[in-house]
Amino acid sequence: MAVATQTPTKTLEEICINSIRFLAVDAVEKAKSGHPGLPMGAAPMAFVLWDKFMRVNPKNPKWFNRDRFVLSAGHGCMLQYALLYLSGFDSVTIEDIKQFRQWGSRTPGHPENFVTAGIEVTTGPLGQGIANAVGLAMAEAHLAAKFNKPDAKIVDHYTYVILGDGCNMEGVSGEACSFAGHLGLGKLIALYDDNHISIDGSTDVAFTEDVSKRFEAYGWHVLHVEDGNTDLEGIAKAIEEAKSVTDKPSMIKVTTLIGYGSPNKQNTAGVHGAALGGDEVALTRQNLGWEHEPFVIPQDALDHMQKAIERGAKAESEWNKALSDYKSKYASEAAEFERYVSGKLPDGWEKVLPTYTPEDKGVATRKHSETCLNKLATVLPELIGGSADLTHSNLTEIKGKGDFQKGHYENPNVHYGVREHGMGAIVNGMALHGSGLIPYGATFLIFTDYMRAAIRLSALSEAGSIWVMTHDSIGQGEDGPTHQPVETIASLRAIPELTVIRPADGTETSGAYKVAIEKSKANAPTLLAFTRQNVPNLAGSSIEGVTKGAYTIVDSQGTPDIILIGTGSEVSLCVTAAEKLTSEGKKVRVVSMPSWELFEAQDAAYKESVLPKAVTKRVSVEAGVSFGWHKYVGTEGATVSIDTFGASAPGPVCMEKFGFTVDNVLATAKKVLG
Amino acid sequence: MAVATQTPTKTLEEICINSIRFLAVDAVEKAKSGHPGLPMGAAPMAFVLWDKFMRVNPKNPKWFNRDRFVLSAGHGCMLQYALLYLSGFDSVTIEDIKQFRQWGSRTPGHPENFVTAGIEVTTGPLGQGIANAVGLAMAEAHLAAKFNKPDAKIVDHYTYVILGDGCNMEGVSGEACSFAGHLGLGKLIALYDDNHISIDGSTDVAFTEDVSKRFEAYGWHVLHVEDGNTDLEGIAKAIEEAKSVTDKPSMIKVTTLIGYGSPNKQNTAGVHGAALGGDEVALTRQNLGWEHEPFVIPQDALDHMQKAIERGAKAESEWNKALSDYKSKYASEAAEFERYVSGKLPDGWEKVLPTYTPEDKGVATRKHSETCLNKLATVLPELIGGSADLTHSNLTEIKGKGDFQKGHYENPNVHYGVREHGMGAIVNGMALHGSGLIPYGATFLIFTDYMRAAIRLSALSEAGSIWVMTHDSIGQGEDGPTHQPVETIASLRAIPELTVIRPADGTETSGAYKVAIEKSKANAPTLLAFTRQNVPNLAGSSIEGVTKGAYTIVDSQGTPDIILIGTGSEVSLCVTAAEKLTSEGKKVRVVSMPSWELFEAQDAAYKESVLPKAVTKRVSVEAGVSFGWHKYVGTEGATVSIDTFGASAPGPVCMEKFGFTVDNVLATAKKVLG
Repeated sequence: MAVATQTPTKTLEEICINSIRFLAVDAVEKAKSGHPGLPMGAAPMAFVLWDKFMRVNPKNPKWFNRDRFVLSAGHGCMLQYALLYLSGFDSVTIEDIKQFRQWGSRTPGHPENFVTAGIEVTTGPLGQGIANAVGLAMAEAHLAAKFNKPDAKIVDHYTYVILGDGCNMEGVSGEACSFAGHLGLGKLIALYDDNHISIDGSTDVAFTEDVSKRFEAYGWHVLHVEDGNTDLEGIAKAIEEAKSVTDKPSMIKVTTLIGYGSPNKQNTAGVHGAALGGDEVALTRQNLGWEHEPFVIPQDALDHMQKAIERGAKAESEWNKALSDYKSKYASEAAEFERYVSGKLPDGWEKVLPTYTPEDKGVATRKHSETCLNKLATVLPELIGGSADLTHSNLTEIKGKGDFQKGHYENPNVHYGVREHGMGAIVNGMALHGSGLIPYGATFLIFTDYMRAAIRLSALSEAGSIWVMTHDSIGQGEDGPTHQPVETIASLRAIPELTVIRPADGTETSGAYKVAIEKSKANAPTLLAFTRQNVPNLAGSSIEGVTKGAYTIVDSQGTPDIILIGTGSEVSLCVTAAEKLTSEGKKVRVVSMPSWELFEAQDAAYKESVLPKAVTKRVSVEAGVSFGWHKYVGTEGATVSIDTFGASAPGPVCMEKFGFTVDNVLATAKKVLG
Repeated sequence: MAVATQTPTKTLEEICINSIRFLAVDAVEKAKSGHPGLPMGAAPMAFVLWDKFMRVNPKNPKWFNRDRFVLSAGHGCMLQYALLYLSGFDSVTIEDIKQFRQWGSRTPGHPENFVTAGIEVTTGPLGQGIANAVGLAMAEAHLAAKFNKPDAKIVDHYTYVILGDGCNMEGVSGEACSFAGHLGLGKLIALYDDNHISIDGSTDVAFTEDVSKRFEAYGWHVLHVEDGNTDLEGIAKAIEEAKSVTDKPSMIKVTTLIGYGSPNKQNTAGVHGAALGGDEVALTRQNLGWEHEPFVIPQDALDHMQKAIERGAKAESEWNKALSDYKSKYASEAAEFERYVSGKLPDGWEKVLPTYTPEDKGVATRKHSETCLNKLATVLPELIGGSADLTHSNLTEIKGKGDFQKGHYENPNVHYGVREHGMGAIVNGMALHGSGLIPYGATFLIFTDYMRAAIRLSALSEAGSIWVMTHDSIGQGEDGPTHQPVETIASLRAIPELTVIRPADGTETSGAYKVAIEKSKANAPTLLAFTRQNVPNLAGSSIEGVTKGAYTIVDSQGTPDIILIGTGSEVSLCVTAAEKLTSEGKKVRVVSMPSWELFEAQDAAYKESVLPKAVTKRVSVEAGVSFGWHKYVGTEGATVSIDTFGASAPGPVCMEKFGFTVDNVLATAKKVLG
């Protein structure tokens, strides 16, 4: 590999590239924290991409038809901040760059879409970004297939990604890229910054596979730019060629030197994740012929890069004209397209959600979920989703609609394959495409463990993802403890900003979907936990009750002696136990508590009305760990719970053996009553 | 693909294969639950492998030098139970097979190593098994490199795996297989049951990549048996060829028909995960010419397969002789080898663990962890581990020892690359190799989200894995909320059988390792959470205190007015706050609570002595979510906690802004005191 050498005269392009490099070098130096290596090495490819290809409008970062750019190697975020600043985005000023990684800044240590306009998705946890990008490209393909006409392409953009060795080592990227290859997403173009260095040193210590061959195996179109440090024309040609292949995603391996220009640190792990240090910064300036003070960018470079403003305004204006034509020709499609993009729900959408009475046959809540999804699909065509190879167990198919496949991107049913983590990140990408899609992903509740990083990121990055999880307890049965969640609900409730709902019956399932759809449109994720097994429809269950998180479903006259708090399939145990206790002269309240987070969001008066402080005798009943329940049952209460792993046996046997029976609820309640 | 056709005369081999098939068919039929398709299709390859290659001793399933067999596609466990039964293992009788998937049986719905002798690892969650197998093969390579002599190979076995399409779709398998290719693990041989069917139907709907090419890209030796249904010789030749390639792992793609023999269901998803149904069972009997009643195996098949008993006894006896020779020639190595295999710790090993006084410089607990690991490595050569590309952040290197690499398998430092999930499953595999290794895996605490399925399986499957997690709070700092755990500790505490320890200082770190090492030898995992930032060494901290989970570190005369409960880096805040409160005349106790699980394991008297019921004014202080703390602070207490995501800023700024200050602890305590 060539060692970087100084060239005496600088072209304007080189000056622009060095502008990116030194913004990164100096910001990291000032913060004494950060990752200069990637921006220094990837500056050429990033410059070529943004200068010659990216269609964005810096003055309207949310312009719908913009190309999406994802820095999957999120630790190199100074690259992205430099691009935004130099291209004229108002979200990143030179002052913001000086505040890199400081409290309250718009330039946090990894790119955060909810902080900085121009950032599409939150990256940093490696591999997520490239998988999000697959979701962005799927969203584009879906909308294009839905709305474009032979004479009017109103949805037409590329999704570009820069990813590194770290991303390529992560399984989540493999899952998503295998799927992208399967789908033939031709407008997804990934630039792989092949610099042979990760934190532990040379990739030789751990990562010697042939990445290009692997992507070919996935069905990608693969290219290689051998000198990514100086061959700007080669980079441009590769991107052109990638664009020309429309039936496969493209991966351009761009071989670079990490920390290019730093005489003593380039091509070492030392430049990956730490400031260069004053002396090396000076030497790098000397080596690259950079005579400017920190944070000073030559005017000609700024002028050149800010041409993006004019280009972007022109592009948006042309698109606006095209959209206007489209409106006049295709009024109803245009109205629907605009509704999508506005993120508004059609009036009365929620009326399709069914309610039930105790006379209605009790079925599994996963079955109610299927009903809800299919009812909702009749009024919300923006629903798009599927399962990680458990379609007919999760019951997530929208019937009568086709599968989302190559050549059939207009269809809503996605078959993710056994790729939970990839699915999670893809769903987040679709949610963050900004086109009003309501994406959902499904698997067994236990397998949220495989995709937890993506679920967490949905909550952190304000993605309106809906997680449809079935087989939500030891009621799962014969598959045994590897497949039976016990701690799973608790572990998900612990995630900030994630709403977890475990409905008790059909009506509560409708309530759960009402919340999930509204939250999706408000850019917040919801996780729904459904039973495998049948549950009765309860008297008193209500959609409104679900929206409040917890509510009284059975009550006594006057102050209760005891409150039984149930969730999901265990609420009916509480109801039956309450009947028996009442017949024995006790005053019993049953609270159905499908969602802790929704309950916590209520005001103090409502909370007191449901769980009065004066009633300290309380029993929670949930087929999961007791972890966390002491907040609601207090020191005088008790939990009916399972604090061990489950076992392989028919579901009803498991429930009985582990104490989820009316008798055990009764016995526990009597013990608490004293 | 050829349709299965009935052949009129059966060879003994065919009868053996059909014995496997019908044990699976009939057991699933009886249970009305399970997965017949894989056993029916994979029976030929499994038969050839077990009949011609597997070196196991059915009457001593734990014989050290046995070949390891992993059914990564764990849902097909009837295949494995059939093999164990037919080969003469006492752990699976025909009665056990009749109890398939029933309460308390030794034939649960997925293979569980802790239930059934002969099962090496717990599989079912897809992709885990193949990754476990990489760990098993690494353990073999490590011990062979350590103990074998040119004239004495006492460690010498293969690791065989059967995996399916589902496993190959999962990212965790990609991570582990890429790593196995890097390491050149020649004695790892995987048979890929290429049947083109997963639960959603044909793999055409989601999985059309070229798997063989991908494995070639990983650096594997790849073979293909085109007719895995009948070409027994081809299967045997392929395994022979795989064995002959010693510098690469081998993947044999074996193309089969799922549900082979079922006239109406073979090659469909219908046979994947459901009983065939009585009519189809009858038709399958007819089609395959199987005239036996359910659970009746022809004596000649049994006789043939039970030759494994004699073969195994002979193999073990030869090995015992070899070991005996080894002992006489290499006494000290033999003694050490026998100590390894016995799982015993050397006397006095724990004396190397340092203790500290407040005068000792306060450093980060990750730094104390490095000291402990390096001290322990001087007395416990069975320590083997490393980081997922964060070696110098996690500080997990055993200094002066080399890296575990191809040709250097004797070294203990493993560079996992950015493959957290793969690492997790590999560590479990090493722990379950049964050779006394103490394996550890490290990354940032937040990235337990990537490997949670493997951590859970360590707890479920009784693997003595040690999870070394650093950067354990918002004290992580500038990297921001994507890298800052807040809910992570809580979510891990929720996992049954996992011990989580978050030590406060150097002495507590030693205590944490004392517990982790002892638990590893007792086949239980421990997760250690260490700070990035420096913490003072506290007066009164103790190793013994850690072993009890929680203990009084500062106390008052008489009954305290208030108890401050801290963990990790926040204990010192409690200590300083207590000093101030004491100076204001309050009686204050500080409890350091590094481990909830260890505390819960104490008797009631001890618990009462630390947290007396009479003292209801309590404050917990932990830089994480409040979730779960109400169990200890009760209804009159309070938590100093962070129930939102963190932020990008220097660690001390984050701690201050989110209220982890002495002032805020004081203010909260005073509020609770009223």
